[in-house]
Amino acid sequence: MADINAVAKQFTDFYYTTFDSNRSSLGSLYRPSSMLTFEGTQILGAPAIIEKLTSLPFEKVEHKVTTLDAQPSSVTVASLIVSVTGQLLVDDSTNPLAFSQIFQLIPEGGSYYVFNDIFRLNYG
Amino acid sequence: MADINAVAKQFTDFYYTTFDSNRSSLGSLYRPSSMLTFEGTQILGAPAIIEKLTSLPFEKVEHKVTTLDAQPSSVTVASLIVSVTGQLLVDDSTNPLAFSQIFQLIPEGGSYYVFNDIFRLNYG
Repeated sequence: MADINAVAKQFTDFYYTTFDSNRSSLGSLYRPSSMLTFEGTQILGAPAIIEKLTSLPFEKVEHKVTTLDAQPSSVTVASLIVSVTGQLLVDDSTNPLAFSQIFQLIPEGGSYYVFNDIFRLNYG
Repeated sequence: MADINAVAKQFTDFYYTTFDSNRSSLGSLYRPSSMLTFEGTQILGAPAIIEKLTSLPFEKVEHKVTTLDAQPSSVTVASLIVSVTGQLLVDDSTNPLAFSQIFQLIPEGGSYYVFNDIFRLNYG
């Protein structure tokens, strides 16, 4: 599953770098059928997802990926599930928050889009 | 997505109750194609998965689910992704460990089996 892991690494590098620098430009990763569940709130479709992400109440954010796992999610399509755990820092806080996030990526035209996205903070 | 959430709740109730009481009997949930990634170790197929789960070095374990999210994982099949964050206690420890676990459940004969299973401890 080396290829799967390379796709997962490339995707998460792009996703979190873009999130932390200009999260409004993540829209190209989502489609009308894409789902985001953010801290229990369910959001459907690229426009609503980007509206949610850009309305989050912080100016600066920095994600650090601690663990990254990937598995094929289908026997018929080259889709994959990506599971991330990590820490994030918002604004000038020095207190990192643990988070977990999962994605299902669906192949399309030589790249992938996000069909499923579930984000949770972990309060240990 | 009320039905999806009910399936996720019923599944996780069964899974963690069984894990904590007699984890060798979780085998019926997995198939030859099922994948488990446990703390980064990749395991394929029901027999190997159960061998891994039963060989974990604790006698007693107790999972507590903190958050539970579910989304449909396909537009053509009634499969779903379930994302869990929670805490677990092993043996006589009183220090809970944060974990995150995700499953993809595939419908089969009126029930579901686990196609994907990714488990990670979260070190905040």
